[in-house]
Amino acid sequence: MSPTPATFSSPTAPSSYAWEATDEQVAARYGIPLAEVARFDLNTSPSPPELAVRLLAGGDYGRQLSEYPPSDYRRLVEAAASRYGVGADEVLVGAGADEIIDLIAKAFLPPGGAAVIPTPSYAMYLVDTEQRGATVRSVPRLGAADGFAMDVAAVRAAGRGANIVWLCSPNNPTGLPEPDGAIEALLHGLLVDATESGVEPPAVVLDEAYAEFVGQSLVDLRVGYPRFIVIRTASKAYALAGLRVGFALARPEIIARMAPYRPPGSVSVPSVAIVTEALLDDAVLAENLERVVRERARLASALGSSGWSVGPSVTNFLLVDFGTPAHAGVVAEHLLRRGLVPRTFGRGHPLAHCLRITVRDIDENDRLIEAAGSFGEARS
Amino acid sequence: MSPTPATFSSPTAPSSYAWEATDEQVAARYGIPLAEVARFDLNTSPSPPELAVRLLAGGDYGRQLSEYPPSDYRRLVEAAASRYGVGADEVLVGAGADEIIDLIAKAFLPPGGAAVIPTPSYAMYLVDTEQRGATVRSVPRLGAADGFAMDVAAVRAAGRGANIVWLCSPNNPTGLPEPDGAIEALLHGLLVDATESGVEPPAVVLDEAYAEFVGQSLVDLRVGYPRFIVIRTASKAYALAGLRVGFALARPEIIARMAPYRPPGSVSVPSVAIVTEALLDDAVLAENLERVVRERARLASALGSSGWSVGPSVTNFLLVDFGTPAHAGVVAEHLLRRGLVPRTFGRGHPLAHCLRITVRDIDENDRLIEAAGSFGEARS
Repeated sequence: MSPTPATFSSPTAPSSYAWEATDEQVAARYGIPLAEVARFDLNTSPSPPELAVRLLAGGDYGRQLSEYPPSDYRRLVEAAASRYGVGADEVLVGAGADEIIDLIAKAFLPPGGAAVIPTPSYAMYLVDTEQRGATVRSVPRLGAADGFAMDVAAVRAAGRGANIVWLCSPNNPTGLPEPDGAIEALLHGLLVDATESGVEPPAVVLDEAYAEFVGQSLVDLRVGYPRFIVIRTASKAYALAGLRVGFALARPEIIARMAPYRPPGSVSVPSVAIVTEALLDDAVLAENLERVVRERARLASALGSSGWSVGPSVTNFLLVDFGTPAHAGVVAEHLLRRGLVPRTFGRGHPLAHCLRITVRDIDENDRLIEAAGSFGEARS
Repeated sequence: MSPTPATFSSPTAPSSYAWEATDEQVAARYGIPLAEVARFDLNTSPSPPELAVRLLAGGDYGRQLSEYPPSDYRRLVEAAASRYGVGADEVLVGAGADEIIDLIAKAFLPPGGAAVIPTPSYAMYLVDTEQRGATVRSVPRLGAADGFAMDVAAVRAAGRGANIVWLCSPNNPTGLPEPDGAIEALLHGLLVDATESGVEPPAVVLDEAYAEFVGQSLVDLRVGYPRFIVIRTASKAYALAGLRVGFALARPEIIARMAPYRPPGSVSVPSVAIVTEALLDDAVLAENLERVVRERARLASALGSSGWSVGPSVTNFLLVDFGTPAHAGVVAEHLLRRGLVPRTFGRGHPLAHCLRITVRDIDENDRLIEAAGSFGEARS
């Protein structure tokens, strides 16, 4: 969700996720009806697949609501294995990608350890690393002209002696994948360095939360780099964020190392049933991708016509550069007064001069386009 | 769920929850149809409240399945505060009591710390303690004749310098609450000892997963013992284990200390909506309690008539003493061959000579009663 970790004033308080304002808080603060709040800040899809709504209403979840989910999530695991092209013993289920990140940290990041993060990226890598009592080695990404790619040599250098390298491609909040071959080159370098030093290479985590939007996964890299873990989710391309289901994909011995940390059952019975069917149904994914890609092009084009500097994106969100944090702040206020909630980046964040805008449905996008136009007029 | 922690053979593998066999595994192992498997081992209620099924089918969850749950779970928090008689700033939401236990461990149990557990009790206290890299101080409970009560003086002594004391009342798997005044006496002693030593007293966690069955909570003890945390759940008396919702109740400063560890949203959108309504509806609780208490009496009486030594219980399960682990094992096999799954306790467990039996619905209880009768005949 948010890329902005909160800094607490107490020196003993840990890093923490910065909660988004709720719809109610936005409505109250800006004096607008609750129904007019539109979330452009959460990178969710604008409506769930019809299949999910139908299954939920149908009431058949494979077991009663009074029972725990199956301890092995067997059908869900098999559906994920089939969808993602891995073995059933190469899948771990979690309550969203966030629980997967927590389980990886528990299994691979000892207190006093170190984790590398090409920055900026999704906030929870930093939060979970610091909450484990481990150190973050933050490696700045290249600039917009270089597609915010990670600095492979610098990440490799930081990876010496680290326990985990957290990667995200396509990256949130920058919207672009790593260049072809970059992750392969990093893995090769990490292996060479580890062999040279006689230590285990770090676990490399690749968060592919947005992979469906590019139609490509790097999960096969686990063959050459055994400590490679891919994260997938039902929250983005499957438009099922409300069901809280995510996955780790990795070699069987890596899944086995994480499994003891998995709680007995964190995913609800209806979520298990519905995500299983959604993963098995090609149309669910295709329909949402088609919708998002079409609206992304229209939204980017229209915002560009209003003079906004919209960066390229392969995902369901756009990064817009307003030049200065002050200008980005003014635009954010302009949008919020209309109930349109953009993702802002805190003071000191490398993208403080930008807003991140989720691609929503036609009506909501129209409201944003109109607001962008009226802002331009107000300034001209 | 299970009270039996698994011991891994690898010296580097952590303590872990011992997964229950799935319905499919039981059916395959004993050669019985899947539909004939009945779970007497999970302490779940035999069917969910009608309200939950109706709301889920109705399809109105307050937000779409494509959106994340509200970051503050506001309505759910307010319903829990109202139901449990605490302030809204004294509630933390988790994906079942298991996530609450994890969050408590993260907030209060540093690596190298120590936690006290009156044993036997629910397995996850030990698992989460050891997975934090902390030490378990296990304090044996008194015997059956003393209602398996904790040894207050011994728990108090073990609490010196500990970070957490994990209590469970009514206790799983023994089925009885701590005697009146015991927890109050412990808290008093811990405060005295901490003051004497000039250190902070340990956080005392009271898992009240089964509290509704006795109609009584000790949550008010947080007034006199600030580091007191009560765990509640929708899984047991509310018959909604499949929705994965649990709560921590504590003073606002304790909730604030735990909150940074809470993931952005681990509870699904339908679960949030349904548990909110279930907590606000008096009938949901009353109907299940009435059903469980009636069947508990009938089941205990009938099993006693078959010569089983059924212990007293205030919960939705019974502890049956078979004298020796070998005899308990023979009875378990007799039941499993009929698809009836009891909770067994592993070798070396202090209750290895017992089986734990969940109170189920009339039909399933009848099957168990009949099996108990036929076992008696087979032996006589």
